[in-house]
Amino acid sequence: MEQIIWKCILHIRNTSPLVHNVTNYVVMNNTANAVLAVGASPIMSHAHSEIDDIVQICQSVVINIGTLDEYWALSMLQAAKKASQLQKPWVLDPVGAGATPYRDRLLEQLLDLNPTVIRGNASEILALAKNSQTTTKGVDSTAQSNEAVFAARYLNRQFGSIVCISGETDIIVSDRQIFYIHNGSKMMTKVTGLGCSATAVIGAFIGGINNKIEAIVAATCLFSISGEIAAKQAAGTGSLQVLLLDKLFNITQEEIQQYIQLEVKDEK
Amino acid sequence: MEQIIWKCILHIRNTSPLVHNVTNYVVMNNTANAVLAVGASPIMSHAHSEIDDIVQICQSVVINIGTLDEYWALSMLQAAKKASQLQKPWVLDPVGAGATPYRDRLLEQLLDLNPTVIRGNASEILALAKNSQTTTKGVDSTAQSNEAVFAARYLNRQFGSIVCISGETDIIVSDRQIFYIHNGSKMMTKVTGLGCSATAVIGAFIGGINNKIEAIVAATCLFSISGEIAAKQAAGTGSLQVLLLDKLFNITQEEIQQYIQLEVKDEK
Amino acid sequence: MEQIIWKCILHIRNTSPLVHNVTNYVVMNNTANAVLAVGASPIMSHAHSEIDDIVQICQSVVINIGTLDEYWALSMLQAAKKASQLQKPWVLDPVGAGATPYRDRLLEQLLDLNPTVIRGNASEILALAKNSQTTTKGVDSTAQSNEAVFAARYLNRQFGSIVCISGETDIIVSDRQIFYIHNGSKMMTKVTGLGCSATAVIGAFIGGINNKIEAIVAATCLFSISGEIAAKQAAGTGSLQVLLLDKLFNITQEEIQQYIQLEVKDEK
Repeated sequence: MEQIIWKCILHIRNTSPLVHNVTNYVVMNNTANAVLAVGASPIMSHAHSEIDDIVQICQSVVINIGTLDEYWALSMLQAAKKASQLQKPWVLDPVGAGATPYRDRLLEQLLDLNPTVIRGNASEILALAKNSQTTTKGVDSTAQSNEAVFAARYLNRQFGSIVCISGETDIIVSDRQIFYIHNGSKMMTKVTGLGCSATAVIGAFIGGINNKIEAIVAATCLFSISGEIAAKQAAGTGSLQVLLLDKLFNITQEEIQQYIQLEVKDEK
Repeated sequence: MEQIIWKCILHIRNTSPLVHNVTNYVVMNNTANAVLAVGASPIMSHAHSEIDDIVQICQSVVINIGTLDEYWALSMLQAAKKASQLQKPWVLDPVGAGATPYRDRLLEQLLDLNPTVIRGNASEILALAKNSQTTTKGVDSTAQSNEAVFAARYLNRQFGSIVCISGETDIIVSDRQIFYIHNGSKMMTKVTGLGCSATAVIGAFIGGINNKIEAIVAATCLFSISGEIAAKQAAGTGSLQVLLLDKLFNITQEEIQQYIQLEVKDEK
Repeated sequence: MEQIIWKCILHIRNTSPLVHNVTNYVVMNNTANAVLAVGASPIMSHAHSEIDDIVQICQSVVINIGTLDEYWALSMLQAAKKASQLQKPWVLDPVGAGATPYRDRLLEQLLDLNPTVIRGNASEILALAKNSQTTTKGVDSTAQSNEAVFAARYLNRQFGSIVCISGETDIIVSDRQIFYIHNGSKMMTKVTGLGCSATAVIGAFIGGINNKIEAIVAATCLFSISGEIAAKQAAGTGSLQVLLLDKLFNITQEEIQQYIQLEVKDEK
């Protein structure tokens, strides 16, 4: 698997896929820089008057609802619809799922457009599954269980999305396998937008790589290992950000091999 | 007082209050990172459709008018109203007060909602008092004096707000005492959003600490001392930002004690 | 010319012109910091209710269409109109020119307001000239040639703008001379918003300096040399950003002299 991950990383550096981001104000700069650091090209655009044209020229779309409002909610739906229609991969970052009814209503509509990937922390993934259950009814008991992996399995079955739960261990849930990535650092939770940057990097990888599960695992390993190496050298959260971008840009195959803590389990 | 300040800093690190920010585009990333670095949790949200729900789940609100427009002005008023109604503390950063009539009209409406704290530079505090005087009439002569402390006293009397004037010396004006904090560095004025970040950190502290004056003094000392230490090591304004976040994250009681230059005077 | 460049740099540090930015969400923070680092003062404002007042108090205006939408497009037109009317210099950054018809329609309207300067990469300058030709007709054959310098000459003749084409070599095209600046670093293309920051620094210099061509050449040399020095020390794109701001802030006359690679050719 390490060979595949490294091949994916090189592929993105060499092909530089164009990634359309409809994302939040707080993290736009970070996520654009993360996408650039891994070798891809970000476009940030939300105008109803051009979204269709932008989706058309990009290889993938990132939808992040962080600082949504009535205008941006429509932008997100428009971009996701166009991506679906053109069969371009797209990733959903359900920032703050469960925090307000407004957020949850938009997330329902976005889920119905079948994101290729969903990436969030455990509480967001749980909220997403719960929200979807209340309104769709008839959910089986495993999904009602209050754990993120069950929630992820439910979302995968219901919407066909591969689900990435970020946390101390990142967990990637597909219909066939579950991947556990024991990399990263606790300090990463004290920098804004690192989850959003991970999502954007996943967006870059699914834009450039056909095998979506390999793309997502590679992107997540790259991000979490870079964060882990950066955190070792960081004096605090300011330098962590800087060192993380540096590492996303200059990571080597040797570093991936040295740090990677990846576990794979088959889904029965 | 140093003991109290350190206790406040630890209290925020341990309780991690949730802070709702309706702030400007330029500084959202910095202020979120400053709030995280001191141990609190930021939420950035401005949608009319969810502001009430967000205020409800937060411990305090930060209103910063930097890049206001017609939509955001309503967001700010809605958040401030809801905070008042729920008796949650909120801080106003009157960025660019006096620069345009549009800004001043919004500030008048926000002042009428009695912010717990107002933080601005001397010219903003002066403009705020002046603006409020023109329209409310009958202001006493001390307040008409063209100095920021008098302006702050006037604002305190009129609206009940504790006023923090940032500058070479930060001055905090309450009805009982004035605090002078002789910390910080001139280089801090050459980085965008450091005033806004100070406001957001004050927002975090008033969210987590009952004694508001202690909270504000602690937040301001923490911020200015961190900036002073960071500026000593910084080669320029780029590294100052990074080092400041690092220091907000890892400052020790010893550093506070070594650097603090705090003076307190009773108001007669 | 090096003497003139250094005098321009000092003049901005000493006079600190006020620069109004109507720019994109991704880069607002970077561009504000770049403007501050060179000694000028940025204002970011886009509200229709105050744009005229802000243009009035500033020395120059920066229009960057990066994350435009229907509201912001009007903000940009309003700011450019007011700047023209008050004869204040303004610079246009046509981010993503040619990417969508929506972008191109706005750019046409902005060009008609005769920007003092246009700064973009080669593909943007080409798209801008092409777009303008399709709609205005009767363009001579040199301009139809597919090279950025010809496109720049065409834009200069048609709209009176000095055109700065950024790239491995930055090329500044006026009606009398062409300047070639062989400074910078390839790594700069892997950080978001450095082109936009260069534009904002040009905005600061045309705000403070009467001789526009000297102002633009000085700003571009300052920016590209700072980037080149920063890239030499940078471990990756994260540290490049930090070191670039540091260098914009602390660059010396000796460094300018040591690094500058400037070539001037007369236009016949």
